[in-house]
Amino acid sequence: MARPTPLSGFPEWLPAERVVETHVLDVLRRTFELHGFAGIETRAVEPVEELLRKGETSKEVYAVSRLQDEEGSQERRLGLHFDLTVPLARYVLEHAGKLVFPFKRYQIQKVWRGERPQEGRFREFIQADVDVVGSETLPFHYEVDLPLVMAEALAALPIPPVRIAVNNRKIAEGFYTGIGLTDVDGALRAIDKLAKIGPDAVAEILREDAGATPEQARLALELAAITGDDASVADRVRALGVSNDLLEEGLGELVALVEAASRRVPGTVVADLSIARGLDYYTGSVYETTLVGHEDLGSICSGGRYDSLASDGARTYPGVGLSIGVSRLVARILGGGLAAASRGVPTAVLVAVTSEEDRELSDDVAAALRARGIPADVAPTAAKFGKQIRHADRLGIPYVWFPGTDGHEVKDIRSGDQVSADPGTWAPPAEDLAVTVHRT
Amino acid sequence: MARPTPLSGFPEWLPAERVVETHVLDVLRRTFELHGFAGIETRAVEPVEELLRKGETSKEVYAVSRLQDEEGSQERRLGLHFDLTVPLARYVLEHAGKLVFPFKRYQIQKVWRGERPQEGRFREFIQADVDVVGSETLPFHYEVDLPLVMAEALAALPIPPVRIAVNNRKIAEGFYTGIGLTDVDGALRAIDKLAKIGPDAVAEILREDAGATPEQARLALELAAITGDDASVADRVRALGVSNDLLEEGLGELVALVEAASRRVPGTVVADLSIARGLDYYTGSVYETTLVGHEDLGSICSGGRYDSLASDGARTYPGVGLSIGVSRLVARILGGGLAAASRGVPTAVLVAVTSEEDRELSDDVAAALRARGIPADVAPTAAKFGKQIRHADRLGIPYVWFPGTDGHEVKDIRSGDQVSADPGTWAPPAEDLAVTVHRT
Repeated sequence: MARPTPLSGFPEWLPAERVVETHVLDVLRRTFELHGFAGIETRAVEPVEELLRKGETSKEVYAVSRLQDEEGSQERRLGLHFDLTVPLARYVLEHAGKLVFPFKRYQIQKVWRGERPQEGRFREFIQADVDVVGSETLPFHYEVDLPLVMAEALAALPIPPVRIAVNNRKIAEGFYTGIGLTDVDGALRAIDKLAKIGPDAVAEILREDAGATPEQARLALELAAITGDDASVADRVRALGVSNDLLEEGLGELVALVEAASRRVPGTVVADLSIARGLDYYTGSVYETTLVGHEDLGSICSGGRYDSLASDGARTYPGVGLSIGVSRLVARILGGGLAAASRGVPTAVLVAVTSEEDRELSDDVAAALRARGIPADVAPTAAKFGKQIRHADRLGIPYVWFPGTDGHEVKDIRSGDQVSADPGTWAPPAEDLAVTVHRT
Repeated sequence: MARPTPLSGFPEWLPAERVVETHVLDVLRRTFELHGFAGIETRAVEPVEELLRKGETSKEVYAVSRLQDEEGSQERRLGLHFDLTVPLARYVLEHAGKLVFPFKRYQIQKVWRGERPQEGRFREFIQADVDVVGSETLPFHYEVDLPLVMAEALAALPIPPVRIAVNNRKIAEGFYTGIGLTDVDGALRAIDKLAKIGPDAVAEILREDAGATPEQARLALELAAITGDDASVADRVRALGVSNDLLEEGLGELVALVEAASRRVPGTVVADLSIARGLDYYTGSVYETTLVGHEDLGSICSGGRYDSLASDGARTYPGVGLSIGVSRLVARILGGGLAAASRGVPTAVLVAVTSEEDRELSDDVAAALRARGIPADVAPTAAKFGKQIRHADRLGIPYVWFPGTDGHEVKDIRSGDQVSADPGTWAPPAEDLAVTVHRT
């Protein structure tokens, strides 16, 4: 086999890089569990017809099929899930009778998207989602809680601060209705282009595609220009002179969200009424998160509220949740040198081997260390000690242990300090015990 | 959407079941890291031609393809990996220049096999593998170390004791050569059927398919009948009167393995010369593991040594490793009621809400508890306290907290005991802090 070449879009990490990714996943899991989310994992495949319910994703689906499938097989066509929301909706319907609602779950799994390879996007990546799903009803306060859980999780990662921009479907829909602009989704699609093409071009699309009058277009753009992190946001919307019940409901929710956020995670959450992405399918709050100084990454954590995440006809399940694009974040941490692992292996101590006949002695030392929770390995061969120390050094292992029948010694190979030690009692300093990930 | 039905072969767990699976995965990871294995993860797909190199697996491969792939696309055909060994071999070749050898890695990931659905086998399941890969050479002692790592990992799980049966390709090949039986692989295929069809039928296959004389068939069956956990195994083989250098080398290795195992994990590893599965592709030690009392499960942890796990023409990479079929094990733990989770959510404390206006007070209590590492949740609604307590009870949450502006109280809802408490200092007993998994 010739040396293989990487597959575009399928990221893979070296051991020291994987330590960073594992650290990120551990921190997320820990935060989600502190907040009482139960972890679930769903199968990687769903019936293709379920994956295609939102027509626009069809290009992104990877179909799977048995290579030796029989002709005329009656099996359902399957595809790899492209997010964790479609599987959650199916899981809730399938297991509803055995779940307690509101159902708070986190889910950290790979997803796949059959993107065109030349776009340079990931085709396989890890997502980390939190959602709360209610049965028939879901209190508004979860729309406040969920982004704050994510803010806490992201703050615990070795990354720059994040900015969570929030908006609310009810504001846009109520406002547009209030000014007589009836093509709400068309107007949202136009506003979604604001950052890319600017207000003049958006005004043109609003008039030509969404049927807006010049005055309606002007008001829609004024609405989209409003940002802020307190109740003044609502005042500035009201100053535009539009009156509508749904608009008022949305403003109340948005202010409740930014005020609670200011109190619990100051400086993180801002209302930004230009956020339109997702407003066509979310029904309440929506969230987009950028990494300060890395805005080119796009949103690293998005989500919102669905009044009907799932429905089996008899019963409707509303939900609110957010999803972190973990692989994209990890790729930036690694590529941008934001953080690094203290070493590429878990090993704190490499036990040297004096001769192959005495390997058992080294094995016993390693076993004694492990029994006390100290990751230990034994040298591959009874080479000269200098070579054994170099092996530890190449792996970043901080300590080398020299066993002896009449006494043991352990060397910190960074400082060169060597001391007598007992395998039943010696321990490395806490900072050397486990691999750590530090900001660089 | 109607209520979905499960997909045969794709196991999925309820939250409390997933706690058990997560516990199993955490224990395995912890054990592998204590032994100095670095964790890696490989992409889920490999080029189909690499997956099909062993012809007999073709029926098991799931091919993946972009649903909207262009006609005449030049992309390579991809399939989901069916084990973690093929990806490891590719990873080693691809990244060889950046790895330190011997490369000790663990890998815990899902794999997929396109089995016929009616066979009732899993089509998606988790494997947990440890391997050591050398560059050009790999010392024999790793063939002793690796099964002992797995013995330690399995002993830490909430399952009955395991029995690791070991054999060595060199013994079979040397012995058959020594008696003039040249179709070694044919003879191994026959011996592999021993437990299923008995010695008389195997003797017939040895004679008819492997070209054995009646005497050769008798000797091959006598070899296969030998088991034991010390040097007497070699004596009993030698008593069959066959002399061969490769046989002697294999016996030396097998005895070294069982003797080291008797010392380090007594009562776990036995030599069993009837083990033939995998001997056609492994080149040294082979391992099969059964769960005592659950032999119907088949091998839950298998592996062996390859002299050429991978080769890029210029360089050969020998390896030795084992793989645990985690999903099959977890399915048995759950289905057989071998262990259970103390609760289905991570939450130790549910903070009650007196009125929606006072929700902030409850949020603050929960935040104070979480800041000290206590998983806490806040009640979904300000229902009557009895209803809030029932919600905690349904989730298995042991404590309900009642906040108050002039003092807080916390109730152990199992005993009914209620005491005054301060959110800045109170903590549950250690056994209630995190979800635990206990044998049942």
